[in-house]
Amino acid sequence: MFRPVCKHAARQLARPSRSAAVGKRHLHTPVPFDWKDPLGANNMFSEDELAISETAESYCQDRMLPRVLEAYRNENFDRKILEEMGELGLLGATIQGYGCAGVSSVASGLITRAVERVDSGYRSGYSVQSALVMGGIEEFGTEEMKEKYLPDMAKGKMLGCFGLTEPNHGSDPGSIETIAKPHPSKKGHYSLSGSKTWITNSPIADLLLVWAKLGSTGKIRGFVIERDQCPPGTLETPPIKNKNGLRASITGMIQLDQCPVPEANMFPDVEGLKGPFSCLNSARYGIAWGTMGALEDCIARAREYALERKQFKGNPIAKYQLVQKKLADATTDAAYGILAATQVGRLKDEGKAAPEMVSMIKRQNCDRALVNARALQEVFGGNAVSDEYGIGRHVANLFVTQTYEGQSDIHSLILGRTITGIQAFY
Amino acid sequence: MFRPVCKHAARQLARPSRSAAVGKRHLHTPVPFDWKDPLGANNMFSEDELAISETAESYCQDRMLPRVLEAYRNENFDRKILEEMGELGLLGATIQGYGCAGVSSVASGLITRAVERVDSGYRSGYSVQSALVMGGIEEFGTEEMKEKYLPDMAKGKMLGCFGLTEPNHGSDPGSIETIAKPHPSKKGHYSLSGSKTWITNSPIADLLLVWAKLGSTGKIRGFVIERDQCPPGTLETPPIKNKNGLRASITGMIQLDQCPVPEANMFPDVEGLKGPFSCLNSARYGIAWGTMGALEDCIARAREYALERKQFKGNPIAKYQLVQKKLADATTDAAYGILAATQVGRLKDEGKAAPEMVSMIKRQNCDRALVNARALQEVFGGNAVSDEYGIGRHVANLFVTQTYEGQSDIHSLILGRTITGIQAFY
Amino acid sequence: MFRPVCKHAARQLARPSRSAAVGKRHLHTPVPFDWKDPLGANNMFSEDELAISETAESYCQDRMLPRVLEAYRNENFDRKILEEMGELGLLGATIQGYGCAGVSSVASGLITRAVERVDSGYRSGYSVQSALVMGGIEEFGTEEMKEKYLPDMAKGKMLGCFGLTEPNHGSDPGSIETIAKPHPSKKGHYSLSGSKTWITNSPIADLLLVWAKLGSTGKIRGFVIERDQCPPGTLETPPIKNKNGLRASITGMIQLDQCPVPEANMFPDVEGLKGPFSCLNSARYGIAWGTMGALEDCIARAREYALERKQFKGNPIAKYQLVQKKLADATTDAAYGILAATQVGRLKDEGKAAPEMVSMIKRQNCDRALVNARALQEVFGGNAVSDEYGIGRHVANLFVTQTYEGQSDIHSLILGRTITGIQAFY
Amino acid sequence: MFRPVCKHAARQLARPSRSAAVGKRHLHTPVPFDWKDPLGANNMFSEDELAISETAESYCQDRMLPRVLEAYRNENFDRKILEEMGELGLLGATIQGYGCAGVSSVASGLITRAVERVDSGYRSGYSVQSALVMGGIEEFGTEEMKEKYLPDMAKGKMLGCFGLTEPNHGSDPGSIETIAKPHPSKKGHYSLSGSKTWITNSPIADLLLVWAKLGSTGKIRGFVIERDQCPPGTLETPPIKNKNGLRASITGMIQLDQCPVPEANMFPDVEGLKGPFSCLNSARYGIAWGTMGALEDCIARAREYALERKQFKGNPIAKYQLVQKKLADATTDAAYGILAATQVGRLKDEGKAAPEMVSMIKRQNCDRALVNARALQEVFGGNAVSDEYGIGRHVANLFVTQTYEGQSDIHSLILGRTITGIQAFY
Repeated sequence: MFRPVCKHAARQLARPSRSAAVGKRHLHTPVPFDWKDPLGANNMFSEDELAISETAESYCQDRMLPRVLEAYRNENFDRKILEEMGELGLLGATIQGYGCAGVSSVASGLITRAVERVDSGYRSGYSVQSALVMGGIEEFGTEEMKEKYLPDMAKGKMLGCFGLTEPNHGSDPGSIETIAKPHPSKKGHYSLSGSKTWITNSPIADLLLVWAKLGSTGKIRGFVIERDQCPPGTLETPPIKNKNGLRASITGMIQLDQCPVPEANMFPDVEGLKGPFSCLNSARYGIAWGTMGALEDCIARAREYALERKQFKGNPIAKYQLVQKKLADATTDAAYGILAATQVGRLKDEGKAAPEMVSMIKRQNCDRALVNARALQEVFGGNAVSDEYGIGRHVANLFVTQTYEGQSDIHSLILGRTITGIQAFY
Repeated sequence: MFRPVCKHAARQLARPSRSAAVGKRHLHTPVPFDWKDPLGANNMFSEDELAISETAESYCQDRMLPRVLEAYRNENFDRKILEEMGELGLLGATIQGYGCAGVSSVASGLITRAVERVDSGYRSGYSVQSALVMGGIEEFGTEEMKEKYLPDMAKGKMLGCFGLTEPNHGSDPGSIETIAKPHPSKKGHYSLSGSKTWITNSPIADLLLVWAKLGSTGKIRGFVIERDQCPPGTLETPPIKNKNGLRASITGMIQLDQCPVPEANMFPDVEGLKGPFSCLNSARYGIAWGTMGALEDCIARAREYALERKQFKGNPIAKYQLVQKKLADATTDAAYGILAATQVGRLKDEGKAAPEMVSMIKRQNCDRALVNARALQEVFGGNAVSDEYGIGRHVANLFVTQTYEGQSDIHSLILGRTITGIQAFY
Repeated sequence: MFRPVCKHAARQLARPSRSAAVGKRHLHTPVPFDWKDPLGANNMFSEDELAISETAESYCQDRMLPRVLEAYRNENFDRKILEEMGELGLLGATIQGYGCAGVSSVASGLITRAVERVDSGYRSGYSVQSALVMGGIEEFGTEEMKEKYLPDMAKGKMLGCFGLTEPNHGSDPGSIETIAKPHPSKKGHYSLSGSKTWITNSPIADLLLVWAKLGSTGKIRGFVIERDQCPPGTLETPPIKNKNGLRASITGMIQLDQCPVPEANMFPDVEGLKGPFSCLNSARYGIAWGTMGALEDCIARAREYALERKQFKGNPIAKYQLVQKKLADATTDAAYGILAATQVGRLKDEGKAAPEMVSMIKRQNCDRALVNARALQEVFGGNAVSDEYGIGRHVANLFVTQTYEGQSDIHSLILGRTITGIQAFY
Repeated sequence: MFRPVCKHAARQLARPSRSAAVGKRHLHTPVPFDWKDPLGANNMFSEDELAISETAESYCQDRMLPRVLEAYRNENFDRKILEEMGELGLLGATIQGYGCAGVSSVASGLITRAVERVDSGYRSGYSVQSALVMGGIEEFGTEEMKEKYLPDMAKGKMLGCFGLTEPNHGSDPGSIETIAKPHPSKKGHYSLSGSKTWITNSPIADLLLVWAKLGSTGKIRGFVIERDQCPPGTLETPPIKNKNGLRASITGMIQLDQCPVPEANMFPDVEGLKGPFSCLNSARYGIAWGTMGALEDCIARAREYALERKQFKGNPIAKYQLVQKKLADATTDAAYGILAATQVGRLKDEGKAAPEMVSMIKRQNCDRALVNARALQEVFGGNAVSDEYGIGRHVANLFVTQTYEGQSDIHSLILGRTITGIQAFY
């Protein structure tokens, strides 16, 4: 039904040539403004990228969107969604080989935007699979790990989760307490013990990428745990329910009690925070794209509501200045956010993206998405309280995106540190 | 001393190739973050553009900056500045031919940024000359006009001003009252009467581009008035003093009392608001660039002050979270604003820039420059009140940029109209 | 267990004498600051008012609070709550006689604050009963109505709801479509038809105060409908489920299909919007108090969390400047809001309160409660998503309080109209 | 011409009785809203306080206002202003005896508001004389000092200044470096050396209250220096020019070079920061009142401009929603700020005001005055740049008030410390 990403057809829209000063003749025939693409970002995408975006958007609107209202109400996550995305080649899409599509970082951002246009919870499930776990294995795993896990993960047959945050260590992962020691009885194995929380996908994950301190060195290392290899009682992943947001994703804990993990399942070379931070950086890049999709959906919904809702002498409320200003503000921030995410994507692929760039766009795009979504929610007046308008769901979700993978203030201090050369965390 | 724009030498920095997924090998050697170019915008500029930027920045820092403090205190504008810029090929730089450099819109934006990094008032003087008057003549003038005026204007030997706003008609230029009728006594001439206000450069202008309603049609038309051709008493341009901001630019009125203007000096084809709006659109594009320069200067000044100023146990105030957050916010907005201005510049040259895109970036960049400059001003504490720190001057200037050429709220409504299809001006 | 409001014992705290310049001798022994009462508002309350407040706070914390988490999760409202409040004399408390306590408007505000400190949904249920329905009957009803309904309502035995808003008429109630005509078959009765929505308590109400247009005059009139007198099929009150906020209150529609209402049940003298607006004004006054209670609870929760949560070298996050600023901002707005609500309460009782004063404090206190609650929610980082911290519930609730009984922007325009003398609604 | 404060006549407006629930009969005749006193604060003031306010307002509007435009342009301060205020009994007005009026703290706040309604610079000059110097002498001076200085200061014949801030110690006065040692040659004298900056009134002061560290103890002590007793070369007070704001006040340095000061001129009992902080607290209380006056003037000016200025089809811009919202926001903050300042004034006189209450109202009222003044400045569009509209002057002044006597962020941390019990200054 949907064309997979890896075999897209040619498209007509050419990449802009960007030669200087050739636009003169166009000046007298003004170009129409498109509120869905206010600063013409589509001109920056390649033919391939646009095709991938179209595939992802169609799938998300046609297949995901109809499921989200019930999923959110009931805190369900349908794991088939990742399977379907796998069929379309959307998982781990930037990876070359291992059954992955090998697309550009911008193309991957466009997929993420399409998913979060529907729901940040779905996007979270997708990001964990693609960026955190597949990305982590691809970057830090052995060739054996890659061959063993990536193809099934790319198909969405095998689901992953990423275990870093602990109950007492959120913004400060350097202090994690989960520990890996030589297993007392099982040769060639480590024994992992500890507790992780707020782990997206943990209750349904087949593969758990867990970060723990190696007892012998005190350094953080990454371990790939296969659930079906864990003896009973050594691994529990109870779900966390009654969330205020991201209710269409599934979240849980990871409780490890002397869980045996083969030595070969430890990432060989990376130690310290470099490993998890590199994965998170990749996921944060995706969040910067995704939240723009959520914001764009809020704009579309608020715009439509404002055009249909009439108050005071039968005027659509879209006629009121206070409503128009909210739409103008939100549209501007969405347009700017897309440009920034695109720029960082390009630099990533050229090896020129500093990690703080990702802090910057993660923070700003989350913040602006949230602020504007809240302002747009006001357009719905009392009706905003009904979940059928979707806006309240986005607002609740976007608050969570602002706090996870680096709360907004923490990223301020990361930026402050790089700007001033002085750390202000404590 | 400075290399003119039109003959710049080759530079080494190559345009990024942007092929996808080639950056893998760089991942393990993180790229350093540059607070002066937080999202790597320099990667988007061509070799020529970077060279032009360098020329403009050097000139502005070395020659303009030393003059601005006294100019601002005394409300002086040294017209030699435009002459010097002319020598470097910086005036009317996007125009092809007529002694102009013919550079890209992005290059022109980089010049504007360099000028406003020093002072918005200097940038105003420059914008009027380049965008409003030279740009207007180039777009709407006859070939005779172009040949007669543009070369001298490009050299900064002949200064222009742009007369649209009237005392009672600011945001609503469609209601202007200045009128042009056949001259009662001077054949082949119109007689112009009316009054313009808040006209940058008017007291020193040699050439006045004035918009007036043609008596016979009631339609707005553009007239090019040569000051030295006006009989005594028909043209007065008294300065407006005691301004709260932009004190390094010169501002005045234009008072026309049956001023005779040759018929050949009326723009031949353009009528209605299309003419002035097209010119303003061009100037607004420049403001979007310029205000980012002013904001960048505020960041640099606040950062330096915060690193040097010590309070509480000898810590530099740059160590305080509340200070770091202000720097992070400002740096982010500057980085985003530059990307947006670059994007619109590229689209302009490709003939793909809708006028509302310019409204968007003019509004947003002015607003964010102002908000952040104000926040950074707080970093200076009580010392901010001293004009030697420069920050108060930028704050006062940036407020003016937010109000002129379309006050921020007006641009909200322009955007709101294009987003919703409904006007909310009245 | 709790002392009823109407028979409170004496208390020791005297009302301040407020004679000028007597405080000199105290200057050298600084008074401690109390973050729970930052600007010493308790000094403004009488002994009786403080006693009432204490009764209400004790009841709410001891009896309501333990129920709210489940109620919110399951969208339940336990009608026994209103019965319990009735036993304590807290319902319709400003009314003199008819079994009501006859307390000051400030005392009533203190009750409201205590209730909303627990939950805005509970406060909504309380406000509808007390301010909208009991207040409406007391102000506009006949002596017969008062004697018949008020005593049972004061006990919480009879529950009321208030039907004004219609599906197509939220901010603009002048356009309601529900109509009352002489009943075709039942003598001495009107026949009411129409539909109301977003009606707090409607599914459980025994008494429905419904505003409808009288067919003969086109003027809005108020009708008191007893549910148990309505023939089957003439009155339906289906609940509205899946709300984003106020989930601990019950909300529904009122569907009237030729519902017969005795002529004696129409308010005799009031017509037009004056009736419902007077009731709403009274409810809005309560909201101004209540939202401050919710905000104060957010402050207490965030403060406690910040003192217990440790990050980065074992510091409580309360040590971080960015956290302290959020607490300082919120505490300030709570303190200011309480003063403003107290002032309007005093003026109400003196007959000096203009309706726009209520617009002002409703708008400002809702807005500031919401903004600060959102900022404080950030203090909880990722944990905010867990409903057990309570903060997310307050945030979701406070958004609804900002939109109902006059959305914030609408109150801006009410204020703008009275400030300028010009209406800007359309 | 104006009636002095100390002998005001009786007024008719009675203090409200505030008995509960007496307002019923008024409900049907709505009270008109007064945008100049939105929450009826005038009802809280005594007859005497209202009379004093009237005297001060009349003087300020009739005598001060006409001088301010030129004073601001030229950075002049006419010391006759303080003499005139002295004649009216407005200086040191809360002091009992010594020729002072002995009014309540609220009355003193009303005077301050009247002065800053004209200009924050004038208010600064007044605050230094009244709160910082007269207040300091009255609180900490010997009986001899009081009798010697206060009567002349109350008449405005003798002007004072307050020297605490040093070039390197703004927010952190505990680190000041000015030192007092036994004078090497003059018996019974201290020798003071050091440098103070940003000292309002220093160039024209007759009496300088200077805080210095006593060499023998290292503790801060207060010294009263009579300019005309200082040998040449031991005291210099050069003015600081070219300020961005407060240009109608005179500011300077104090340079002490072995300046001899009689031992009897040291405050006898107070040491450490307690002395200066107590004075500053008193001045900050005044700033909280004063900035509300400046904001009220901005509201009045913006309202008038919005009613007169017509744009788009001849509508006054007061009709536009975006303008009305700015007016509504500002009016609300002004009303709330006045209530808070009144409350703290009452508590001061009862000896119940914690210093942090003053931090709260100083911070909030300065912040809100500034934010709203800036928003109202936008109402003037391009005309805001002309100093004749007065709004730009208020904006520039209010920025300074936000930074001096405790920059806004510093007060956040003072509040944060008292709320959490943890200091976050470093």
